[in-house]
Amino acid sequence: MRVLGVDPGLARTGVAVIDGGVGALRLVHAVCVETSPEVDGGDRLAGLFAAIEKLIAMYRPEAAAVEELFFASNRRSAMQVSEARGVILLALARGGVAMSSYTPLQVKESVAGWGAATKPQVARMTRALLGLDHILGPDDVTDACAVALCHHHRGRLAAVTGGARSRRAAPAGRLGAAIDQARRRQAAVAPHPT
Amino acid sequence: MRVLGVDPGLARTGVAVIDGGVGALRLVHAVCVETSPEVDGGDRLAGLFAAIEKLIAMYRPEAAAVEELFFASNRRSAMQVSEARGVILLALARGGVAMSSYTPLQVKESVAGWGAATKPQVARMTRALLGLDHILGPDDVTDACAVALCHHHRGRLAAVTGGARSRRAAPAGRLGAAIDQARRRQAAVAPHPT
Repeated sequence: MRVLGVDPGLARTGVAVIDGGVGALRLVHAVCVETSPEVDGGDRLAGLFAAIEKLIAMYRPEAAAVEELFFASNRRSAMQVSEARGVILLALARGGVAMSSYTPLQVKESVAGWGAATKPQVARMTRALLGLDHILGPDDVTDACAVALCHHHRGRLAAVTGGARSRRAAPAGRLGAAIDQARRRQAAVAPHPT
Repeated sequence: MRVLGVDPGLARTGVAVIDGGVGALRLVHAVCVETSPEVDGGDRLAGLFAAIEKLIAMYRPEAAAVEELFFASNRRSAMQVSEARGVILLALARGGVAMSSYTPLQVKESVAGWGAATKPQVARMTRALLGLDHILGPDDVTDACAVALCHHHRGRLAAVTGGARSRRAAPAGRLGAAIDQARRRQAAVAPHPT
């Protein structure tokens, strides 16, 4: 199963391609798609759309996981991110890629074990789960990896529980062991809030 | 000058094609593009995108005027409208149509003469300015006409004032006479608040 993770934005959109199956999860490609503020709004969206279409054609993902907007206080930025998200969803629909949407809370819970995890904690967990020797940057790319990991975890969880959902299920198999190990390492840095 | 006016939405997008030049403004085409809530989100956006692309190809507008989102209290609907707006801006950019954006306040000021105009007032003014014998429906189509009219008015205003902007400029020429007449008619129904 190949999943395209996307963290949408007008200026910067993080994209990650992550393969998973019975074994470990593997990062295939990660990139930050940038558009220039000096370019007209519609043309920025056209540049983003073309980049996403190209990535879909190159990596042929079977599914996509797109982060939902965290409703920031800045109204204009929220609308711009939503417009960017719209053209990303369009590219996925036209490419025939099934799309799932996850909130930042769901992503943090799935990757770091709790919804209040900080950005550095999510970054370290993402690195551990993908077996990387360094943290990916910028944040948009880490977030794209995290949402793709979230989709893989959900799929595996559904497979072992027969589709039932749980807010904090016991991790299973080799991935589960990696999550447990990463969580223990994480706990030494920032204890789980009680 | 042919202007495509668009009032964006995910469920219903109003579209109006209005021609203008030295003479009266003329409604060429008006339509409400609808997408079904039973269809997946990405596919709804794809349907909307295809419809806008088709209208651009059919009517070849020289400019487009798109209404900016009125920031409603409903967060989810605001994001959905912005996603729809994103794919509309994409279709315009890919079609090479120059796009201008207007707030609901700017549209009401331009068409009805003040920013606090009600929907029925805007509808009656739109009918008067286009010389129609009935009010167009639904609201989305009226709003699409109004934003296209706003763009025509702005262009004419810029032409007579050499590009200077005014919140409430004196209407000029045949269009100006129509606006004055419509405003007087309007004033008899709902007096201008002082």
